[in-house]
Amino acid sequence: MSRIAYVNGQYVPNAEASVNINDRGYVFADGIYEVIAVTKRQLVDPEWHMQRLWRSLAELQIPEPMSDPAMRAVMKQVIRRNRVRNGFIYMQITRGVAQVRDHAFSTEMRPSIVMTARNTKAVVTDEMSDGVKVVSIPDIRWKRCDIKSISLLPNILGKQIAKEAGAYEAWMVDEEGFVTEGTSSNAWIVTKDGELVTRPTDHAILRGITRTSIIALAEKAGLTIIERAFTIEEAKAAKEAFVTSTTSLVKPVTELDGDIIGNGQPGSVTEKLFALYAAYNDDIGKSA
Amino acid sequence: MSRIAYVNGQYVPNAEASVNINDRGYVFADGIYEVIAVTKRQLVDPEWHMQRLWRSLAELQIPEPMSDPAMRAVMKQVIRRNRVRNGFIYMQITRGVAQVRDHAFSTEMRPSIVMTARNTKAVVTDEMSDGVKVVSIPDIRWKRCDIKSISLLPNILGKQIAKEAGAYEAWMVDEEGFVTEGTSSNAWIVTKDGELVTRPTDHAILRGITRTSIIALAEKAGLTIIERAFTIEEAKAAKEAFVTSTTSLVKPVTELDGDIIGNGQPGSVTEKLFALYAAYNDDIGKSA
Repeated sequence: MSRIAYVNGQYVPNAEASVNINDRGYVFADGIYEVIAVTKRQLVDPEWHMQRLWRSLAELQIPEPMSDPAMRAVMKQVIRRNRVRNGFIYMQITRGVAQVRDHAFSTEMRPSIVMTARNTKAVVTDEMSDGVKVVSIPDIRWKRCDIKSISLLPNILGKQIAKEAGAYEAWMVDEEGFVTEGTSSNAWIVTKDGELVTRPTDHAILRGITRTSIIALAEKAGLTIIERAFTIEEAKAAKEAFVTSTTSLVKPVTELDGDIIGNGQPGSVTEKLFALYAAYNDDIGKSA
Repeated sequence: MSRIAYVNGQYVPNAEASVNINDRGYVFADGIYEVIAVTKRQLVDPEWHMQRLWRSLAELQIPEPMSDPAMRAVMKQVIRRNRVRNGFIYMQITRGVAQVRDHAFSTEMRPSIVMTARNTKAVVTDEMSDGVKVVSIPDIRWKRCDIKSISLLPNILGKQIAKEAGAYEAWMVDEEGFVTEGTSSNAWIVTKDGELVTRPTDHAILRGITRTSIIALAEKAGLTIIERAFTIEEAKAAKEAFVTSTTSLVKPVTELDGDIIGNGQPGSVTEKLFALYAAYNDDIGKSA
């Protein structure tokens, strides 16, 4: 079955789904996106994703392309037409098509909206992945990484460095020597005292939805969470480390810049958080 | 006459010219571009533009979509089919279409290439524009602005701030308080001693082709050029200020953050440089 995309009001096969070359998303990276997990046909944390989507649009002064209920109806259709049981839905909104290339914009343009979906195996209820490798790189991104924009060139270059180094992710380090986040995930460590540490949300990182979920689940489980920046040296000396994202879930990091973290195996706190997150997703799936 | 675009081997009306929604240019801002001026059907400084284009591609590990002569043949066609006598040609190359969204990339993808053109009145031989206003904003861009990438979201936001302030351009200021460049142009001042000052090319600014031309013309005319960074305060106290770019040419700046520069009129050095650049372009046009 060929995948079906939603593009500006129409459902079309992915291979035929297109946007005009003068779409400002193509010319200026003038747009935003969201990726939402689907578990047993149910969206995971749609409220938080939609809230962040509307915020990203507002920050860029891009008008809302449709109402919240209309967006959700399209999401439902895209899930149905792609027969997604477990997987992800991707949505991208750009400022729209401007026939004349001009950096400045009108705030009254008609935004473009694209939505796609893909099936994966049931990710969450699988076993947690083995530990992955991470490398560190300088954070060369712009200063508004809190906006989930499609201006992702530094992220893809960073991810490529990781890939070429045989690593899963690259952790980006700011000019003060602190880790900001991964190229497509938030970064966490567990200290020798068992405290969970992750960078507070400011303009330097994206407020990950999985990050938010994990904080809530960890708090409920009585774990101590400290939102503060940490260095690569601190991470190397940590008991455990892991990343979170919609697609990575909770993924243990066991090697950082070639040094082993902890005993080189996924740690117990990471395992616990993965289990809590899996259960949380199972509950969402059961609400079907 | 509807404008004609070149898109991946085909010449199509602009309104019908499209790219797949999974083009990495659309999803990740994974691409580069160039804008070249056309004067009397002749390209202005094509060697320098092409050199920069190949460099931008190499920096991003995007394969060359076609040979240099083939690119020039397409450029010629796009100029001819759009009947451009004076105007601009725009070309954009992205890493191409990837059906699965993954930050990391294959270095063997087939790049997408788009080319458009538009007619303008004969820009260069017109009179120099009146002085324009500039506002200053923090430079929030990534740290590889030497690559002419389509990851332009901070630039368009900056230009919008300028527009909303009734200004022509925004000059971006780095964390040390020095002007980097405009959102789509290079920044210059003329000191009380008549010295031309513009920021040296590093990773913080784009090596503008018009900037390069002006340096060559100014040197030939016996002017003193100093490549160093300057502050907003220094610019306000300068005798003259101006911006250069392919579309702005040499444009006098007579107001900066509400303060008048010099006597509030375009200065004599700026006028001289405009005249030299106009003559340089006229010569290119005569070579037809």
